[in-house]
Order: sequence, then C-alpha cells, then structure tokens
Amino acid sequence: MENPEVTVSSCSAHDDENLCGYKRHSSVSQEALLEDQLRRKLKFFFMNPCEKFWARGRKPWKLGIQLLKIVMVTVQLVVFGLSNQMVVAFKEENTVAFKHLFLKGYMDGMDDTYAVYTQTDVYDQIFFAINQYLQLPNISVGNHAYEKRGAEETPLAVCQQFYKRGIICPGNDTFDIDPEIVTDCLYIEPTTSLDNTTMGKHNLNFTLDFPRLVAVQLMFNLKAINLQTVRHHELPDCYDFTLRIVFDNKAHSGRIKISLDNDIAIRECKDWHVSGSIQKNTHYMMIFDAFVILTCLTSLILCTRSVIKGIWLQRSLTSYDVCSILLGISTMLVWLGVIRYLGFFQKYNLLILTLRAALPNVMRFCCCAAMIYLGYCFCGWIVLGPYHVKFRTLNMVSECLFSLINGDDMFATFAKMQQKSYLVWLFSRIYLYSFISLFIYMVLSLFIALITDTYETVKHYQQDGFPETELQRFISQCKDSPNSGRYRLEEESSASLFCCCNGCSGHI
Amino acid sequence: MENPEVTVSSCSAHDDENLCGYKRHSSVSQEALLEDQLRRKLKFFFMNPCEKFWARGRKPWKLGIQLLKIVMVTVQLVVFGLSNQMVVAFKEENTVAFKHLFLKGYMDGMDDTYAVYTQTDVYDQIFFAINQYLQLPNISVGNHAYEKRGAEETPLAVCQQFYKRGIICPGNDTFDIDPEIVTDCLYIEPTTSLDNTTMGKHNLNFTLDFPRLVAVQLMFNLKAINLQTVRHHELPDCYDFTLRIVFDNKAHSGRIKISLDNDIAIRECKDWHVSGSIQKNTHYMMIFDAFVILTCLTSLILCTRSVIKGIWLQRSLTSYDVCSILLGISTMLVWLGVIRYLGFFQKYNLLILTLRAALPNVMRFCCCAAMIYLGYCFCGWIVLGPYHVKFRTLNMVSECLFSLINGDDMFATFAKMQQKSYLVWLFSRIYLYSFISLFIYMVLSLFIALITDTYETVKHYQQDGFPETELQRFISQCKDSPNSGRYRLEEESSASLFCCCNGCSGHI
Amino acid sequence: MENPEVTVSSCSAHDDENLCGYKRHSSVSQEALLEDQLRRKLKFFFMNPCEKFWARGRKPWKLGIQLLKIVMVTVQLVVFGLSNQMVVAFKEENTVAFKHLFLKGYMDGMDDTYAVYTQTDVYDQIFFAINQYLQLPNISVGNHAYEKRGAEETPLAVCQQFYKRGIICPGNDTFDIDPEIVTDCLYIEPTTSLDNTTMGKHNLNFTLDFPRLVAVQLMFNLKAINLQTVRHHELPDCYDFTLRIVFDNKAHSGRIKISLDNDIAIRECKDWHVSGSIQKNTHYMMIFDAFVILTCLTSLILCTRSVIKGIWLQRSLTSYDVCSILLGISTMLVWLGVIRYLGFFQKYNLLILTLRAALPNVMRFCCCAAMIYLGYCFCGWIVLGPYHVKFRTLNMVSECLFSLINGDDMFATFAKMQQKSYLVWLFSRIYLYSFISLFIYMVLSLFIALITDTYETVKHYQQDGFPETELQRFISQCKDSPNSGRYRLEEESSASLFCCCNGCSGHI
Amino acid sequence: MENPEVTVSSCSAHDDENLCGYKRHSSVSQEALLEDQLRRKLKFFFMNPCEKFWARGRKPWKLGIQLLKIVMVTVQLVVFGLSNQMVVAFKEENTVAFKHLFLKGYMDGMDDTYAVYTQTDVYDQIFFAINQYLQLPNISVGNHAYEKRGAEETPLAVCQQFYKRGIICPGNDTFDIDPEIVTDCLYIEPTTSLDNTTMGKHNLNFTLDFPRLVAVQLMFNLKAINLQTVRHHELPDCYDFTLRIVFDNKAHSGRIKISLDNDIAIRECKDWHVSGSIQKNTHYMMIFDAFVILTCLTSLILCTRSVIKGIWLQRSLTSYDVCSILLGISTMLVWLGVIRYLGFFQKYNLLILTLRAALPNVMRFCCCAAMIYLGYCFCGWIVLGPYHVKFRTLNMVSECLFSLINGDDMFATFAKMQQKSYLVWLFSRIYLYSFISLFIYMVLSLFIALITDTYETVKHYQQDGFPETELQRFISQCKDSPNSGRYRLEEESSASLFCCCNGCSGHI
Repeated sequence: MENPEVTVSSCSAHDDENLCGYKRHSSVSQEALLEDQLRRKLKFFFMNPCEKFWARGRKPWKLGIQLLKIVMVTVQLVVFGLSNQMVVAFKEENTVAFKHLFLKGYMDGMDDTYAVYTQTDVYDQIFFAINQYLQLPNISVGNHAYEKRGAEETPLAVCQQFYKRGIICPGNDTFDIDPEIVTDCLYIEPTTSLDNTTMGKHNLNFTLDFPRLVAVQLMFNLKAINLQTVRHHELPDCYDFTLRIVFDNKAHSGRIKISLDNDIAIRECKDWHVSGSIQKNTHYMMIFDAFVILTCLTSLILCTRSVIKGIWLQRSLTSYDVCSILLGISTMLVWLGVIRYLGFFQKYNLLILTLRAALPNVMRFCCCAAMIYLGYCFCGWIVLGPYHVKFRTLNMVSECLFSLINGDDMFATFAKMQQKSYLVWLFSRIYLYSFISLFIYMVLSLFIALITDTYETVKHYQQDGFPETELQRFISQCKDSPNSGRYRLEEESSASLFCCCNGCSGHI
Repeated sequence: MENPEVTVSSCSAHDDENLCGYKRHSSVSQEALLEDQLRRKLKFFFMNPCEKFWARGRKPWKLGIQLLKIVMVTVQLVVFGLSNQMVVAFKEENTVAFKHLFLKGYMDGMDDTYAVYTQTDVYDQIFFAINQYLQLPNISVGNHAYEKRGAEETPLAVCQQFYKRGIICPGNDTFDIDPEIVTDCLYIEPTTSLDNTTMGKHNLNFTLDFPRLVAVQLMFNLKAINLQTVRHHELPDCYDFTLRIVFDNKAHSGRIKISLDNDIAIRECKDWHVSGSIQKNTHYMMIFDAFVILTCLTSLILCTRSVIKGIWLQRSLTSYDVCSILLGISTMLVWLGVIRYLGFFQKYNLLILTLRAALPNVMRFCCCAAMIYLGYCFCGWIVLGPYHVKFRTLNMVSECLFSLINGDDMFATFAKMQQKSYLVWLFSRIYLYSFISLFIYMVLSLFIALITDTYETVKHYQQDGFPETELQRFISQCKDSPNSGRYRLEEESSASLFCCCNGCSGHI
Repeated sequence: MENPEVTVSSCSAHDDENLCGYKRHSSVSQEALLEDQLRRKLKFFFMNPCEKFWARGRKPWKLGIQLLKIVMVTVQLVVFGLSNQMVVAFKEENTVAFKHLFLKGYMDGMDDTYAVYTQTDVYDQIFFAINQYLQLPNISVGNHAYEKRGAEETPLAVCQQFYKRGIICPGNDTFDIDPEIVTDCLYIEPTTSLDNTTMGKHNLNFTLDFPRLVAVQLMFNLKAINLQTVRHHELPDCYDFTLRIVFDNKAHSGRIKISLDNDIAIRECKDWHVSGSIQKNTHYMMIFDAFVILTCLTSLILCTRSVIKGIWLQRSLTSYDVCSILLGISTMLVWLGVIRYLGFFQKYNLLILTLRAALPNVMRFCCCAAMIYLGYCFCGWIVLGPYHVKFRTLNMVSECLFSLINGDDMFATFAKMQQKSYLVWLFSRIYLYSFISLFIYMVLSLFIALITDTYETVKHYQQDGFPETELQRFISQCKDSPNSGRYRLEEESSASLFCCCNGCSGHI
Repeated sequence: MENPEVTVSSCSAHDDENLCGYKRHSSVSQEALLEDQLRRKLKFFFMNPCEKFWARGRKPWKLGIQLLKIVMVTVQLVVFGLSNQMVVAFKEENTVAFKHLFLKGYMDGMDDTYAVYTQTDVYDQIFFAINQYLQLPNISVGNHAYEKRGAEETPLAVCQQFYKRGIICPGNDTFDIDPEIVTDCLYIEPTTSLDNTTMGKHNLNFTLDFPRLVAVQLMFNLKAINLQTVRHHELPDCYDFTLRIVFDNKAHSGRIKISLDNDIAIRECKDWHVSGSIQKNTHYMMIFDAFVILTCLTSLILCTRSVIKGIWLQRSLTSYDVCSILLGISTMLVWLGVIRYLGFFQKYNLLILTLRAALPNVMRFCCCAAMIYLGYCFCGWIVLGPYHVKFRTLNMVSECLFSLINGDDMFATFAKMQQKSYLVWLFSRIYLYSFISLFIYMVLSLFIALITDTYETVKHYQQDGFPETELQRFISQCKDSPNSGRYRLEEESSASLFCCCNGCSGHI
C-alpha cells in the first residue's frame, strides 16, 4: 500500500498483503499483475447481463434478441395456431355432417357404440349410404361435390373382404379355413342417380356371405371449398375429402361395428375470382414472416445449438404432426429459457435452485416408487382386466392408477367393478384401498419432505455461502465491483501492460 | 426522581435516567418534555381500537360502523340477490319453453348438437317455427302474447342472408364470389293464423339458394307477465322477450347449427289491479334501503377511499353486469376488511402475518412456474389442438391444465385423445405425465415449503420480537400502559404545558 | 434414613431427605405420612386401566363394558340398517314403477326435465294417468291394489288450483288479478273402469283455464305387500302408498313441470297365513335386543352423561329421521370414545395430542379463511348467479367453492359458464383462478405448516417432559411403581394408620 | 507392529494396540487371531453384492438370476395378459350382440335401468326372445350356432318360478302364502322355426300368474368360433355360451328387471383345417415357456420361500380367478423385490429407509383415524342411507367417504342428496363439511408431518451414524476394505492358519 497510485488498475484486495501490486523492478510483481488481470477477466466472464452492462457498458444484445425471439416466435405460433384451429373446425364439422348424411339413424355421441347386429340391418345401412351418395347434390346443405377425373366423376367403391375359403360349423366344433383375404369391389357412378329410383338388393347385384365376411368398405371422394375465410379477408382453400365407411366383422362376434373415416387434403383452388380486396392481408403476413425469419437467423448465429436443431428441423419436416410437435416443443423451450434470466435475481434464484437441487432426489425416489407402481400395474392388469374397463390394457391401467393418485373419480372406479366373482371383487377393494393409501399418504408426503428439506439446505447455502470451488476462490480475491469502471479500462490497459511487460523483460 | 409529583404526566421510563423529567429551570428538560409528549401521541396513534378505548375511553365508533356496514351491505346484497334469482329463473324457464315450442324435435340437453343436415330439414324447421308462432295462443300453457305496436301486432320476420354473388364449383376447384352479404326479409302477421291452414312451401313464397346462403334468422317479439311474485306480496313485472332463431350456415360444411336466443327487458306494467295488499312490502323495503343509505353515508364520511369508489360507482353504472360486479367485489372487500380486526388478537395475527409475508415469495415463484406453464400451454395448443377438444383454444388449454393440477378428471382427459397418429398419441402421454408430475410433485411441494418456512420465521419474530424500526425504537421508550389514565389527561395537560412553556420562555 | 424398616409403606422418594418418614414420637412425621398417603391416592386416581390393574388388581370393568357396548351398539345398528335398507329399496322400486305406469313417455333419468309445453299435452298426460289408474289391476306386474274405505274403494281426485279472478293481457301490459287461490276437485271411482271405454275430454267434464291455472294435482292411494321378506324368514309388511302427481304452473312461463310424489306408511298386515316357520327369527332378535338393552343399562349406570342423553332420546323420538340422526350420532360418539383408550399407549398419544393441540390454531385460522371464503361466496352469487347453474343459490355457491378447494371437476365449472357477457366471462375466470390459487396454494399449505409445527412441539414435550402443574409436581414425589404392591396394602394400612394415629394422639 | 509381515492376513485396526496380532508364543494372540477371522467373515456376510464381488471376486449370481426372473416373469405375464385380453374382448362383444338380438328395444348403456312395468310388455319380451332364437341363423351376422347333443339341437327352456300358493289381497291387508318356490319349464326346439310362423300367446300355451310369479328365466346354449386369432397366426378356439335371460319379480314392486347373463367355456376345436402355417408360433411359445420354467426352477432352488409358494400355487390352481390373483400378486412381489437392490445405493436407501421407518407411525395413526372414519361410516349409513344413493350400503359409504378424502366429485355428492326432510338435509351438510375438513385438513396434514419428521431423523442418522448394535461394534473393528484382496486369501489362509494353530498347539 506504499504507492497507492499504481493500484488503480489492480484488484483492490481486502487482505493487507497486496497480491496484485504492480512493481517495475521485480518479476514477482509482474506475475501478480498478470494473475490479477486473469481474475478480472474471469470475474467479468461470469457476470450476468446487468452486471456486464455496468462493468463495461456492454449492451445486453443477447438478452434483447432472446426477448425479441420470444415475442416473434409466440406471435408466429399464435398465427399458425389460429389458422390451424379454423381448418380443424371445418374438417370436424364436415365429418359430423357426413356421419349424419351417410349413417342411418346416427345420432350425436353414438360413435363408440354405433354398430349393427342383424343381416338385414347390414344391407339397409349399405344401401342407405349408396342412395344418399347418389342424391347428395339435392340433399346436402353444404357445397359438396363429386370429385372429377377429367370429365367424368369418380365412382363410389363398395368393397367386401372375405376369407378365400371358409366352412365354419360351430355346432360341430369344426372349421376348414384359408385365412387369405380376398377383396371384391363394385363401382357405382354418381350419374346413376339421374333416374329417380333408389338402389337396393333388387337392382344391385350384391350379396354378402356372412360366415366368410371380414369387412365391407364404402369408399368415395368429395370436394368442398371453405368459403368462411373470405370473411376474414383470406383466400378460401379447396378441400378434398376421402371418405371411408367401414363395416368391421373381424371378430365374427355377431356385432358389426360401423365407422366413418374422413381424410383431408388442402390445396389452393385452381381458378378463382373474389370481388373486393383480400390479398393485402397475405402480403402483410409474408412481410411479418420474413421479419421473423431474419430475427431467427440473427438468433441462429448466436446460438449454435439452435442451428443444429434448425437443420434437423428442415430435414425431417415431412409430416404435419412432426412439424407441430417440433414447433410446440421449441416454443416451450423458448419459454423455459426465460427462467435463466429470472435466476439473475437472488430471490427468484432461490426457488429455481431448489427445484434444480431437488430434481436428482425426486428422480431417485421416482425410481423406487416406479417399482411399486409397475408391480401394481401388472397385478391390476392381470387380475382386474377381465372385469373392469379401465384395466383392459396395460396402458390404460397405468393411466387409471396415475389419475387415481392425483384425485380422479375414485367412486366411479370402485363402482364400475363387475361383481361376478366375490374373490375378485374383494381383491379389487384391497387393491384400490392399499394403492391409493400408499401413494397419496406415503409417497406424496415424502415428495413434500424432499422438497422442504432441499429448500432449507439451499436457503442456508444462500445465507452462509455455497461451498466454493477452486476457481471461485481464485476469482473471489478480485473485489472490484462491476460499476467501478476498471473493467472498461481493461482492454487498452491490458494491451499497454503487455507491451510494458515485454519492455520490462527486455530491460532485465 | 427527586420530585416524583411532577412526573405524573411524563412517561415512566424503565431506565434509571429520567429522560422525560420536567424541570422548570433548564431548557434541556423542556425539550425532553416535548419529546415525551410526542412519544405518547405516536403510541396512541398506533394503538388498536381496544387499547384506544382503555387509553382515553374513546368509543370504537369506526369498528362499530364497520360492523353495522357489514350487516347492512350483506342484508341488502341478499335481498338484491334473491330478487335477481327469481328474475333469472323466470327467464330461464321461458327460454326452455320457447325451445320446446319453436324447435322441431328439440329435447333437453341438445343445445350443443342441435343442427340439421339436409335441405328438406331446413325448410321443415322454418315452417314448423312459423306455424307454432301463428298458433301460439292456442298452444302455449304460459301467458304469452304477441307484442303490439299501436293497434296491430308486430310481425315475425324471416330474414335470409346470402353472398351477393356466388358461383361455387368444388368439383372444378373454382369459385367466383362477391363476399358482400345481402339480407332479404319476409314478414308474417300473427293475424294470418285466423284462417286454419298451415304455412308451408306451397303458400309461402320462400326459397333458399344453399350455396350462397350464410344464415337464416327468424325474429319476433313476445310479452309475458311474471305472476309468481304476487304470491310473495310483490307487484308482478311485465317482460318483453326478443326471440331470434338462427340457422347458421357460415361454414358451408353441410351442417346448419340452429340456436334460439332470448333477450329480455323488464318493465313495470302499465295498468294493473290486484285484490289484497301487496304494496306494504315495497314500502318497508324502501325504508330499509333509506336506512342503509344513511349508514353508508356515515361510513362514507369516515372512509375517503370509499367515497371515491362511490363516485365512480354512480357514474359507471350503466349496465346490470357492471353493477353486479362492483356490488359483488365491494361486498368481498367489506368481508376482507374484517380480517384487519381479527389481526388485533396475537394468535390470529400470526396466521395473517404468515400469509402476508409469504405472498411476495409465492408471487415470485408463480412467475417462474408461469414460464413453465406458458410453455406447456403453447406446446399443448399447437400439437394436441387438432386431436383433443379440451386443447382447441388457448384459453381452454390453460383452464384444462390448471384443472389438472388441482385434481380434475385426468383419466377422461387421457381417454378423449384421438388415436389417429401414433406419434401424437405418444406425445400426449409424455406431455400429460410430465406436466402433472412436475406441477403436483415439484411445484405444489415447493409452495408448502415456502409457507412452512415463512410460518417458522414469523413465529420466531413474534417470540423474540420483530426487528425494530427507528420510529418504533423512539416510541418504545414511552412505557405507559393504555389503561394508565395518562392518555386522558394529555389533551388538557398538553395545552397547559405549552402555555407553561411559553411562560417559561418569556421568563428567560 | 436411620430406621429404614418403617418406610415400607411410605413412598420411596428419590431425594435423600425422607419426606414420608413414619415417626411415632413427632407430629411432623404424622403430617408427612398423611401427605404421603394423599400422594399415593392421587397417583392411583390418575393411572390408566392397565396400571390400575397392576396396582391393585382392579379389573378394568369400565373398559370391558365400553368394549361390549361398542360391539352391541354396532351389531344393533347394523341390524337396524339392513332392515331399513330393504324398506328403502322396496319404496324406491315402487316409485320407479309408478312413474313408468302413470307418466306418459317417461324414461329413466328424466325426473329433472320432465315437463310439458302445450295445452294438448297437459290434457293427454292427465287422461293417460286416469286411464292407467282405472286399468291398474290388468296392467301392473306388482301386487298393487286400490285402498278400501269400508266396502268401497277410495277414488282418484283430480284437483285444479287457480286464481279466483285473473284477466291477464301481456300484450297491453295490463292485468287484473285476485291472488286468492281456489281449488276445484273431481273424483273418479275405480269401478268406472268396468265399462271398457277410455276416459277423455269427451266423457269427462274437465277443462282448464290456463291463464288462471296455478296447479293440477292427481291424488290417489294404493296398497302393496312386501313379499320379499318371506324369503329372509321375516314377516311381510303392508305398505300404503299416497301418490300425488303435480302439474306445476306457478311460474306461468310456458313450462308445466310434472312430478310424482310417493309417500309411504308401513303397517303390520291384519290377517295373514304363512306355511313354514318364520317367526323364530323375530324371537331371537327380541332376545338379542333385550340383551343389548341390559348391557346399555349397565353402561348407563356408569356414565351419567349417557343417561341424560338416553332420557332425551326416549322423549323426542317422534319421527324416524330424528331417531336415525340420534342413533347415528351416538354410534359415532361410541366409536370416537375408543380413541381415549388408544391414548394410553404413548406412541398413539403423540398423534392424538397433536390433533388436539392443533385444533385451536386450526379453528382460529378457519375464522380468517372464512372471511375470505364468505367474501368470495357473496361476490360469486351476485355476479355469476345469473350465468352459472352452480352459483344459483347462496348454499350452492358455498358447496361449489368448497368442492373446488378439494379438487372437484374444475374444467366443467369453467366450461359451464355462459358466454353472453364478455365482462362477466372475464370476471369468472379471474374469480375462479384467484380463488383456487389462494385456497389451494396458500390456505392448505398453512394448514400443513400449523400441524407440522404442533407435531414438533408435542414431540419435544413428550421427550423433555410437559411443563408440570402444581398437582403433578406434588404427585411426582411418590415414586412407587404400579406393580410395587403398595397400592394393594393401602386400604387396610390406611385404616390401621388412622387408628394408630388416634391411639398416638390419645397417648400424648 | 514389530513384525508387519505377519499382519498380512490380519485386520488392519485403526487403534494402535494391535488386537489381531499373530504371535506364536502366546495363546492370547491365538484367540485374537481367531476373533479377527470371525470379524472378517461376518463383515463379508453383511456385504452387498457389489462389495462381495470386489472382496472375493464372487459373481452376483443371485442378483443376476433375480433380474432374469423379473424379465422372464414379466414377459410371460404380458403374453398371458395379451391372450387373455383377446378372449375377454370376444366374450364382451358377443354379450353385447346377444343383448341387442334377444332383448326388445335394448340400447347401449341401458343395463342398469332395463326393466318392464306392464303385463303385456312381459309377454312381448318373452315371445320376442323366443322368436329371435328360432330365427337366429337367418338374423345373426356372427357365426353362432345351436348346441348339439348327439344329432339333435338342445332346446330353449322357458322356466317360471312361483310361490306354491299365494292369495295376496293388499286391499284388505291380508295374504295367505306358501313361500316354497315351484319351477315350471317349457322347452322349445330350434327346429320349430322351420315353419315360418312367429311364436306368441296363441300358439304357445304359456300364461303367467303375476301375483305368485317370482321369476321367469329363458335358458339356451349357443356356440361360436373365434376366427380372429387366425390372423395372428394362432389356432382359433371354440366357445360355448350359456345364456340366461332373467325376468326378476322377487320384489313384487311393479317393476320386473331384465338381465342377460352370458357364461363362457373355451375348448379346443375338435376337427379343423387351416391353409398356411400357424403352428410354428405355438411351438416357439412352448420353447419360451420351457425356458421360463427352467429359469424359475433355478430361482426356486435358491429361494426356499418361493418353493413353498410354488407348491401351494400348483395345488390351488383350480379356478381362473385364483390363478390370476396369484400370478398378479407374485409379479407385484417380484417387482417390489427390486427395491431391495436399489437400497444398496446410499441415496436410494435414505428414501426407502424413510418409508420403512415411517410405516409403524403411519399404521398407528391410521388406527386412530379409522375410529373416526368408522364412526362417520355407521352414522352416514343410518342417517343418509334412505336419501342418498352413495350411502345405500355400508360398503358404498366407506368407498364414498374414502373417495371424498382423495378429491372425488364433491359437488355431485352434495347435489344428489334428496331434499325431502330439511333436518336430514341440514345434517348431511354438517356431516360432509365436517368430515371433509377433518380428514383433508387435519389427518392428511398430520401424515405429511409424520413423514417429514421421519425423513429428518433418518437423514441425521445417515450423516451421524445409526446407533450401533453389539454385533456392528464387533465387526466395525475390522477395517479391511472390500477390494483390499484379503477376503480372497481368507479361504486358503484360514485353512493353513488352523493347521498352523494345530501345529503350534502340538508344540506346546
């Protein structure tokens, strides 16, 4: 401390012995000086954006771009989501309309139980669907039309699948079967509808051999235009619906389930004319998209990780589902990234640190609990599976048990148990009571104990200081506060210093 | 302590050196005396009502009026709520009756799925509603009547909205449209019903061009009197119902949703005669209301805040909804105000202090959790939106996830997931399992850790004393207990003291 | 300690100075001896049954009778409950059958929405019920019969209630009404059914003036015998059903709600003959009942409290409901009484003490929470009442909010909110989110903090000793263990001691 | 420590005095040596598999076999479960089909309320079922056939059960009954269907005496083949269905409940021919099964417990339910066994130890809580039973209350309460509010307090050491680490040592 003017650019150490002293005539002080420089550089490196701003006036570009990215990505996601929502709604509405048009006696909410049980009902259903198809333009209130291949309209295909050979005599416990499946199709042109007769068994050469029958499928294509978007000043899209009505007799159980499946393809319409101006909007949207891309590119340059993700994103983007999953996860990660910035404030940090510190123990405990959980899953599946709908498949058992832990409808689960076997009924009670008690009272309580304990530990660390690493101990000797101004002088001074040093070393 | 008789009006300090001594011949003691006065005044200011009563015998007017206000406001609120309840019930019942009268084949609980799918059904529905309207007096079991403008009754309006021009050929992927919407109306007089024929396509010139059709609306007004109130000795009110049946074809999806909308206006009846006495009740009610207003006015004078709120309340009160929201919130605040008085008891205070002290940390932690929550919201909306009803809109996603944390029907949420894409199905499982585990096991546990920790801290403070502020340290030197009687003497003595002081200063 | 042989019957004190010394020649030692006796007696008084058994060989009569009482009361309760269950089931089944027989078009689960909306439907319903009643013996599959008064069967009463005068013109907003209600009845004899014609408007002089109509009631009595009990070797009972079908038009809203009400009276059958032996069972039951009464009497002598309750029970027992409530509560109290005996084991005691010690704080905190809760209740009722079914009445609001805290169907509550007013919709969201967060995250966590804290306190007390009262300190000087045998010698020795003392005093 | 070369095989004690010294010329050192050997052997015995491997290079056979067993048992269980799942699905589908074929007007979800209420409906239902049965081959879409006994098909049996004598006059409150039940049957041959007339009252001599009627049963057998499995390359099975339609009039309440019961028997088909190869799969499965049996046998030899279980398993295996319960429980136990191996890692051990240590206290507390719970159960059953469906039986009360604690649909439970008696309604509110508050706020919180406390205790034990037993203190003096290599030398050295000792003892 004899010559305080030379310590201007050195770290102000708290202890008396001046470790960072700058002395021209001894090599020891040279080394100390370099060490001091290193400390300051390291300390700067570990500063948070706020402190870096105070230390060198460095603007928090990274934080700014991060925030901009969040806003951009979220806005783009919302735009994507909203347009997606409209497409989904249009498709759903059409599917509902098709079910009401082509399935006889269909009512809302019947999907799971919609089935026929007699031979005449099967024929009735098929001919009803065919006749409705032929009269579609006169019946439908939507703008549905038959698909055209060139000039003529594509026909409706009635295909039946049956075993190649099958002589089944359950009465004698005998059967002779060739499990190969043969498909036989019948095509009906929409133009058939011009003569005003209804199709039926009499004028359509179509019979089903029920013992051999595996499935009947009615397949046809319809087209529609989603005019709705015109009102939001966007261009209407053209939709291709591929409909398939399946009569499923795979089980040969006396019950033929009927389902209507509607696949969708969206294309731009070929030729259109709209009075008024709706194109502007798409232009604005493209400009915004370009801006987003630009911002994201900037972000890409800064974050290499994101680049790698981006490349992978471009290659795998074949299906809409994969795209939406990646988009969704990336948005989630962007939002999670904000937590890092909240961690710069000490009080927030406490909470984040607790969660992070508790995670390993929670994971470990989950392993133990998972063993018990798996045991219950397998046991429940085997024993209760035949008697309870929620225990039918292993996947459902897991979901059911997980839901029960978290407070799902327990009484309903108890009540739905079939009371055929008293032994199984008793087992089910013991099983459910023990499982719920064990997990809700023991396991959940232990989670709370784990987190509470971690919280206490982290809080005491924050008050008394974390156990220091070697590096931290090295840095901690440099006591310059970020706004001391020394970090700004560094770049020039360090340059001059090294010159100086070289000069000195030359001298000696 | 030499002359103890003069210390009568001074604070009795615990420490030996008499800080508040009252000595005529030194200016130091003068100052000390004033300081002492200030201490006592401040201590009185920070006393709670009970102590103030002991100290100066001051009656706790404010507490009394507060309690009276709670009783008054709650009684008034209950009266308002009960009459409101009756109006709502009458309106709901009428709406249900109208749905059964004017919608063909309507059954209870069908509102969400009530729709038609074929062109003939649309015409059937419209003509059914018109005919029911024309025969209303002979059909309805309620006292419904047509609205009159002067002598003649207002007609039913059948309005169709369609695109000005629209040539839509989905088969060729082409369309030519003018999105401007034209409205065309047809008016039917109730008197038409006098001839006993039913309305239909043949005698009503009414056709719909389905490809261009956007919506059909049937609008008419009905009147009724709520006689029910006569039995509660109140005057019946006259109701105007504005009914609107909407056939919504905006989507052109093949499904036309039908909804019945019933707007209500309540007025005093023009001319009435009731045998017996029902007016007394309203008189009593008005006297009570006046009393409430008087009490509230007294409360207003004491609480300036309330005045400002009151003024704002008078100006904004245009709609019933705003009124009820303000009335509801104010009642809630009045009840919350009681907590302040519970805080005067030490044991209650502990709990209130804990909640108040934990709030900042809870809010802080909510910020962190909100980031994760938002991430999950966006991700769920984009990926699961097209496959799950509860994830259709961003608002619903948030409600669904919030409900799941708090133990909502989890299995149903798992089960409703459409199993079209295996990838999305898998994603939904990971998404739900991870979300629920994270929030129920980690986040909820941390909340408990936060509150438990705060409770411990506050409890120790209460036992060992809170860290004192400068002001508290200043006041604490005055050790007079509230019922020592000194606070009563203050007002006169302080006056005489200052006289005295002036005299002294004159002497010197 | 000079003469240790005399300390045989004195307490063996741990401290050296022998407080209970027995010395013939000094009155001080006399007093000490008496003090010693008192200590031992008090110590014996506060012993638990096990220790008392060890101390004096006293059998734990009270505990034994308590246990016997629990078994007896529970068995009797189960017998009562099982027979009650069968009666309830029979009544429910009959009510369902009557609904299907007398209500036109009734289907299961329709009770809440069963109503008619047109004038012709009202007449149809009334005449359907009358005709079904007249043909009952040919239709019903149960053993229902008309009630007889003397020789003739009681008729069906069709009563209509209407305003005395009522000219209602909603079209002109005028009405002239006399709110007095007049009842007009029509009686139909079951014998009317002998001629094979159906009743209807043409042959039954019955018209309704709908604007004045308040209600129509069909009242009739039916009888049945519950044969089912024959199979459980009990005597069948005779049932009187008082049926009332109400067409409720109080609201004049266009909707007439229909409800069927079935009151039941059970009597012994007058004259019966059953082949085989079924009377034994009732004899056995009576013997058992007598035994229970005897045991309970013994218990009554020991527990005065129970006697008072018993007397009250005998006087108030007018209604079945009051009886079952008292019986239920008493059984609950009997079971709760067992906890006292569990408290004799130290480890169990810890838990019971914790609950007891935490109760005051929990109650206190409930007061604070109740204020917030009440505030939310009133606010929700006023604002959301008109838009949400669960918020219609104040009682339902309270139940709904309480259920939400404990993990009820939240999403459904969110979803059922009507979206008419955006302001109210937004309010409902803020209201629900804030309420649930506040109560689940703050209030429930604080409960846990309270209990955890009390548990720690009680545990430390148990380890380090509770703060002693004066009495405990006095008793604690007597160190005799229960099985030391001294407590047995007490009675005689104490007698001889006092003799002795008298002799001594005579000597001096 | 003078001759360090001899201490090679002795324990290296931390304290200076060499307890395990090996000295030829003193018998004290001999004893010390043997003691040392014993210590090392004991230490080795208590080592975990990892340490044993390090100590002697012993491979963890037991752990390996355990892991293999888990994999094997789980795979076998999954195979069993999957095939079981297919059988259950086939049976369920057939049952649904039979309900739709034989029950008139049956719709999905009607099972609980499916009943008839008039005499004509009973006849209609019976004749409908008979006619459907006779026409089955022309109606059913499944491969159903009549059962054959020899050449002829088994008939359908229509059996009515009635009281032997029964004159019931509810009108006079008299009855004369012989409760003995007589059964009267009518057999209908499937061949009757050849003539194309429908069966009915006119051509089937069948009348029911309703006052005496207890039940009508329709019984018949059908056969089917589950062809579905052909597609999974497995052999189809032959199914025998024993169907029973029961019209239950036991209660004589005017309501006859109808239920269809379907019992199933699975047999190998007698004679079959399938083109293509499906037998391979079963061969592979058998090889796998044999492998599993071999592994299990190995496991059996090691674990005697398992052997006993296994023997018991082989004897009791008569019913499918018992089998599945034993299989399920054993799988659960196998999985729970894994937790033992997780306990070898210290961090996992902490959690497992906590659960184990908390268990006794949790059980103890459950006893106390059970008293309160039972009290509430009995009280709720008696009082609320007649008014609430969920409180009808004691078992349901328990399930309902248990579900309520864990967050079941509370509002629905509140709402379903019948509002007949105000007293009971009020009681129900107090009952539910108090029960839920008590259990959720007090009992659950105390569980958390218990676990948290145990966790703290166990954690401190782990840090500061568990209180040592005598044995542990003896072993702890041997400080050889497992990988010191000494444990390997043991076997030879110990042998040589004893030789040596013998030699020595011979010398002396």
